[in-house]
Amino acid sequence: MTRVAFLRIAVAVTAGVIVSTAPGSGRADPEAAPIFVTNVPAGYRDWRLISVAHEEGELNDIRAILGNDIAITAYREGKLPLPEGAIIARIAWRHVPSEENNKVFGRAQSFVPGDPPPWYLQFMVKDSKKYAATGGWGYAQFDKDGKSGPEKDLKACFPCHQAIKARDFVFTRYTP
Amino acid sequence: MTRVAFLRIAVAVTAGVIVSTAPGSGRADPEAAPIFVTNVPAGYRDWRLISVAHEEGELNDIRAILGNDIAITAYREGKLPLPEGAIIARIAWRHVPSEENNKVFGRAQSFVPGDPPPWYLQFMVKDSKKYAATGGWGYAQFDKDGKSGPEKDLKACFPCHQAIKARDFVFTRYTP
Repeated sequence: MTRVAFLRIAVAVTAGVIVSTAPGSGRADPEAAPIFVTNVPAGYRDWRLISVAHEEGELNDIRAILGNDIAITAYREGKLPLPEGAIIARIAWRHVPSEENNKVFGRAQSFVPGDPPPWYLQFMVKDSKKYAATGGWGYAQFDKDGKSGPEKDLKACFPCHQAIKARDFVFTRYTP
Repeated sequence: MTRVAFLRIAVAVTAGVIVSTAPGSGRADPEAAPIFVTNVPAGYRDWRLISVAHEEGELNDIRAILGNDIAITAYREGKLPLPEGAIIARIAWRHVPSEENNKVFGRAQSFVPGDPPPWYLQFMVKDSKKYAATGGWGYAQFDKDGKSGPEKDLKACFPCHQAIKARDFVFTRYTP
């Protein structure tokens, strides 16, 4: 056996060991893999702005999309897929008219954040090994009290995001 | 003269010199005072989020309101009036439907930032001396190329903000 061939086998074995001990890594079985993020990422409210959006219909919300430093840097450099460690935070509030602003403006035109809806916080956390079963992203949803779930909503995240696989499963574009 | 007394006088004189050389400081004459901010505050796109809003009608925009560290800290502590050095940035984009998102969702509900409007950037800069004629706030508006004005729009800022003098002339509330 040549030295190069030996090294190749050694690397392959080591990689195999890592894969088999990391929880869920490399496995595509969504029952086994931890596809959901269970804790609110620390400090997200201090992160920088990626963009904003407004959803009509049942959602009826106005939302801000923030990114941690890894996400913001990659977005600004136009890098896709987003690198390991990137986290995207989405904060939503009910889209409500501002009587206060409208009174000053003399017309009904202004909408501001109202109460937090049940889907107040959502996160996407990039960890290609941990969340291999869902495109390398872990998904999370929390209400205003930091309560996670419900699971049926979380299970709906990845199937919907799969439609934009070419953009690394991320809907939001960076808005300068 | 004691050393302490001497230091007190020295500090007072130094402060006096600084005040008297700062342009427009302490003057309430709107013709003489620089009521408009002439340069885009550096680094504003990295500031933290105060809130978001949506304006219908002629404006037809979706907007993010960011604050520098002084502004964010004061907002979070519920401090009014906002302290010297506070700067509030308002970025607006045309409120446009996202065909891309709607296609995935299977219904027309999603609105995202479009092109920057002529009123792309607005700022309020707190400097009670420099902007004494306009409630301690200097106002600014810039288009996407960083061009200031037009002056008639800038002159309309303060009269409108006067309606919310009790809230230190600031429309936007902090949204957690």
